Amino acid sequence: MRYKIVIEYLGTHFQGWQRQLNALSVQQVLEEAISAVTRQRVSVHGAGRTDAGVHALHQVAHFDTDLIYDTAKLQYSINYFIRPHAITILDLRQCSPNFHARIDAKTRRYLYRIINRIAPLTIELGRAWSCRKLLDLELMNRGASYLLGHHDFTSFRATQCQAISPYRTIDCLYLTRVNDEVQLHITARSFLHHMVRNIVGTLVLVGRKQLLPEAIGEILTARDRNKAGVTAPAYGLYLANIEY
Amino acid sequence: MRYKIVIEYLGTHFQGWQRQLNALSVQQVLEEAISAVTRQRVSVHGAGRTDAGVHALHQVAHFDTDLIYDTAKLQYSINYFIRPHAITILDLRQCSPNFHARIDAKTRRYLYRIINRIAPLTIELGRAWSCRKLLDLELMNRGASYLLGHHDFTSFRATQCQAISPYRTIDCLYLTRVNDEVQLHITARSFLHHMVRNIVGTLVLVGRKQLLPEAIGEILTARDRNKAGVTAPAYGLYLANIEY
Repeated sequence: MRYKIVIEYLGTHFQGWQRQLNALSVQQVLEEAISAVTRQRVSVHGAGRTDAGVHALHQVAHFDTDLIYDTAKLQYSINYFIRPHAITILDLRQCSPNFHARIDAKTRRYLYRIINRIAPLTIELGRAWSCRKLLDLELMNRGASYLLGHHDFTSFRATQCQAISPYRTIDCLYLTRVNDEVQLHITARSFLHHMVRNIVGTLVLVGRKQLLPEAIGEILTARDRNKAGVTAPAYGLYLANIEY
Repeated sequence: MRYKIVIEYLGTHFQGWQRQLNALSVQQVLEEAISAVTRQRVSVHGAGRTDAGVHALHQVAHFDTDLIYDTAKLQYSINYFIRPHAITILDLRQCSPNFHARIDAKTRRYLYRIINRIAPLTIELGRAWSCRKLLDLELMNRGASYLLGHHDFTSFRATQCQAISPYRTIDCLYLTRVNDEVQLHITARSFLHHMVRNIVGTLVLVGRKQLLPEAIGEILTARDRNKAGVTAPAYGLYLANIEY
């Protein structure tokens, strides 16, 4: 029996999605909670391997078990064993044994939150990046447009990235502002390591007028990580959706 | 010299706005931070005395000092001394010596946040009330309409409330939903003790269909605290705005 789950988590106290030997991961907490219910060893396969400190509003995963459960009770029981960790199963349903959360994912959407004001953060501390200087969103959106489509994203890829190809396709990328909160929305089938955070760290330079929007195109063409901006902090990043 | 400040705070670790002998308050942290900058004993007068655990997006206060400061530097310095407490000054400006943050306030607006879903909270834990049963907002808004205007709010007032009159005037009260987040918005010149949280705790009974909307009118007329619902938790409540 295969189950598909939708998961939300606050990444602050996890060393990311993927199981680690010496640090707590979201995957480990989920596998232990599910095993506590099913009394079987269970592997949980996630759609996206979020980094340490990154949050998720809608991560998707699957797991197998021999036993048949009432899905509402199973969801409730797993959530019970997850506590007090900041992870929750939003939805749980039986799926085809051929469904694979990672391989079948058609698009992944991420959200990056910036609080754009001079005052330090309180309520959003650890949940958004604090940028003091006023960001010009029109310039940032113009810069972002150079990244849309199929490109070699070497300039926006962590040096330790293990993906075979540096090519990815960004389907959607834009920024919005509501009062002092700036949000970056980005959708692609998949991303390179640190790609979203490196894009954010570079577009912020455009928003601060330290870079022209056109420079984003030049940085992309350069295929050189040193040309782009810093990696924006993990705590502003949210895995927002996975579509199949 | 009198200064008007706009303040944001996460109420979680404070015993409310008002100075206490044996517990940390927002007022105490602000007074100590301002005194650290001005090297004078300073009293901070807030517009609203939020209870223990209640947050503020836009609290207003004033304080006096003999010295004249550059306002941007003064704001920065106070925020520096406030750390690591979850309080921040969003705005600071010189005001008339006749301005009084509490007495001159024309309207106070509060926001109450409910996450309406079965799954336990992670990202919004301690920042919103978790209600598992689906809330019917149409019924809640119909119930809320009985509270609009000038009434004796004895039924929605904490027994320990020290206000002389139980009469208050609600200018605006309505609920909205975005996905699984329900928000209650309420505006009045002033409120009785626990009034907003008691209204929320009672309207939730209407949303769950344990009370008819018309019952809100009957509870109001009864002038009996025992007729209304429970006091909703402090951590869902935000002081959202003060107008002068």
